[in-house]
Amino acid sequence: MMAQALPQIDRERLWARLMDLARIGATGMPGEVNRQALSAEDATACARVIGWGQEAGLVPSLDRAGNLFLTLEGTEPELPPVLCGSHLDSQPTGGRFDGALGVMAALEAAVTLAAMPRPKRSVVVVAWSNEEGSRFAPGMTGSEVFAGVRRLEDIRVLRDAAAVSLGDALDAFLAKFDQPPVDPGFTLAAYLELHIEQASVLEQAGCTIGAVTGIQGKKTWEIVLAGREAHAGTEPMARRQDALASFTRVAAALYTEIAVAAPQAMFTIGRLEVRPNAPSVVPAEARFRIDLRHADSEVLNRLGEMVETLIARHAGPCAPEISRLVDAPPNEFDRGLRQAIMTRAAARGIPAMELLSAAGHDARHLAPLARSAMIFVPCRAGLSHHPDEWAEPEHASAGAQVLLDLLHALSNGGA
Amino acid sequence: MMAQALPQIDRERLWARLMDLARIGATGMPGEVNRQALSAEDATACARVIGWGQEAGLVPSLDRAGNLFLTLEGTEPELPPVLCGSHLDSQPTGGRFDGALGVMAALEAAVTLAAMPRPKRSVVVVAWSNEEGSRFAPGMTGSEVFAGVRRLEDIRVLRDAAAVSLGDALDAFLAKFDQPPVDPGFTLAAYLELHIEQASVLEQAGCTIGAVTGIQGKKTWEIVLAGREAHAGTEPMARRQDALASFTRVAAALYTEIAVAAPQAMFTIGRLEVRPNAPSVVPAEARFRIDLRHADSEVLNRLGEMVETLIARHAGPCAPEISRLVDAPPNEFDRGLRQAIMTRAAARGIPAMELLSAAGHDARHLAPLARSAMIFVPCRAGLSHHPDEWAEPEHASAGAQVLLDLLHALSNGGA
Repeated sequence: MMAQALPQIDRERLWARLMDLARIGATGMPGEVNRQALSAEDATACARVIGWGQEAGLVPSLDRAGNLFLTLEGTEPELPPVLCGSHLDSQPTGGRFDGALGVMAALEAAVTLAAMPRPKRSVVVVAWSNEEGSRFAPGMTGSEVFAGVRRLEDIRVLRDAAAVSLGDALDAFLAKFDQPPVDPGFTLAAYLELHIEQASVLEQAGCTIGAVTGIQGKKTWEIVLAGREAHAGTEPMARRQDALASFTRVAAALYTEIAVAAPQAMFTIGRLEVRPNAPSVVPAEARFRIDLRHADSEVLNRLGEMVETLIARHAGPCAPEISRLVDAPPNEFDRGLRQAIMTRAAARGIPAMELLSAAGHDARHLAPLARSAMIFVPCRAGLSHHPDEWAEPEHASAGAQVLLDLLHALSNGGA
Repeated sequence: MMAQALPQIDRERLWARLMDLARIGATGMPGEVNRQALSAEDATACARVIGWGQEAGLVPSLDRAGNLFLTLEGTEPELPPVLCGSHLDSQPTGGRFDGALGVMAALEAAVTLAAMPRPKRSVVVVAWSNEEGSRFAPGMTGSEVFAGVRRLEDIRVLRDAAAVSLGDALDAFLAKFDQPPVDPGFTLAAYLELHIEQASVLEQAGCTIGAVTGIQGKKTWEIVLAGREAHAGTEPMARRQDALASFTRVAAALYTEIAVAAPQAMFTIGRLEVRPNAPSVVPAEARFRIDLRHADSEVLNRLGEMVETLIARHAGPCAPEISRLVDAPPNEFDRGLRQAIMTRAAARGIPAMELLSAAGHDARHLAPLARSAMIFVPCRAGLSHHPDEWAEPEHASAGAQVLLDLLHALSNGGA
């Protein structure tokens, strides 16, 4: 197969479509995109991608979890297909590349393949539903249901800040498309995902392509500290059950102790809500989320125990309620595919390296189902989940080109 | 004057009206009242009080700051009147007594006086606007404008959480009443205010009446810590400008150091808002309110300097922006009136004591204008700003009776 001319992506089309997509959910702040899962903007983005795919002969379908598939049928459609994509939803104050680049690169690769002699295996572009989890937490609900990690009925009961259930939002979302949702039910030959790095390892190393070795593990919790509301001017300090004071003691211990125990661990309290949140009332409740990540499974588990112990130790006089949410161990991607990424990049003269993914991705859930791999491209200063998130056009093109080269080989039988 | 029969309040009427008033803004949670300043409920409460006053011949008027006055004209109306009242607005999750008891006791006393031979001086019942400051912070805007502490145009620009200005809310509020707002512009003979104690000094001492010696001083601030939004999984800990981590360091230092420096100081962070407040995003901003109180002016000033120093010292790597809001020094009430409260209580056989007010009150702003005093009655377990706030009917009556006895004497020339 490799004797024929190597396929080439259309760099201008890729970039133009990526920028066009970024206008869906644009807030007006330069670069800022708010395209949260299952919103009207998310549906508009899916419809736009369907339109581009259909122009090239790709066949769209959606499943009951809200995942979008665009299929380029192979000459031997009974063979397991090659799946390739990322997500279209963004953080509330997100940027133009996180997720969107991976879907648009996969689309560009599939559209390029569609203009060539048909591959043996079908190639399926996917946009996973609710990767970010900013509206319905925790995220990755689309890939989790696809992979059988969570059941559809368990994600449908999640609620957003306005108390809308994911189930209701999903029904409204699916109703916007012509066809009824399908059960994809296919086995896979392989899964590939391109993404911006969201850190600055590639940038600092001067590399354009990263072959991702694996994803660090992640644990998240929701904690509620229950105190007692009282008058800020009269309630003696010794008698208070101040939920925000308890939060402060708990958080101070967590920030300090986790950093000492594992300097490589990522520890974040991203969300905190105080009740009643009035200037002259002693807080009655503090509700917050913890996000803890580490590449080593054993260390992550040890830190997880530490988190729960420290909360219990420092919450007094408030009563802590600890709920475990995500518990995703670290994973390793397919060694053969990682090697293939390095080889294809070298063949194109693109500097590449292996690196760990600090961020979680849908690929985490595909890895147990089929040979899986991720390609990273640099993003400026490692900035992500931010309006200033930026990937250079030539880096986006290089990533899409290596992705196409891999898809071309995989769909025609080799790797 | 003292030779005639001593006037007696109507205990049943006082209690029935107090409970009736508590239905205006009742949330359905037992005891809970949400009657925030300049809301529809606040206007309904004012209208109800006007109706009760008019039945007894009291003449209503409102000023441009939203304060309500009900005047019982004396036989020598050119003499400075005696003013007496409190406020009708509540915290969002408030109770039935804070403020309301003081207005209803003043009304009960004035209505009782109206049925007797007219006093020499006019007696004016007042309901101050926006004492609580939960909707438009900081509070006490009504008494502050009346006393010339703040200008009307400076309070009109305050905004609530829905970005409604106090000025717009005030115009809508005043438009609900028949007459145009007046400029009260009267000099005062004296000011009296009855209130629940909001602490448990009286309860623990077994006293029903408190002659308040003064109000502890209060300082409040709004602080903004500006960090940088980033991805919770990828941004290296050492590079983060995490606004919530900065808040934690700042707050931990404040809670600890203030307690060590002045164990009697009341220190509260009642309100904290985190942006963007998403589970997997490093917080970019933490905005919070500090409420600091102490009875000693010198200590309060020293603690105030300490607050600002500690914020500056611990906020790094985030940039702190410190805005001073309230700066109210401690004050002392009129010694003659305090003595008169003790004497009247003793004459009625009611156990009384002198005590300091830990909470702020409108009386703070009246004290520089005229001889002023406050009467406290116990509230169960010292609980206030809470649905379980409770004053025994016999304590409410005792307070109103002593208030009437004082008003009777003051309006007829003695004290």
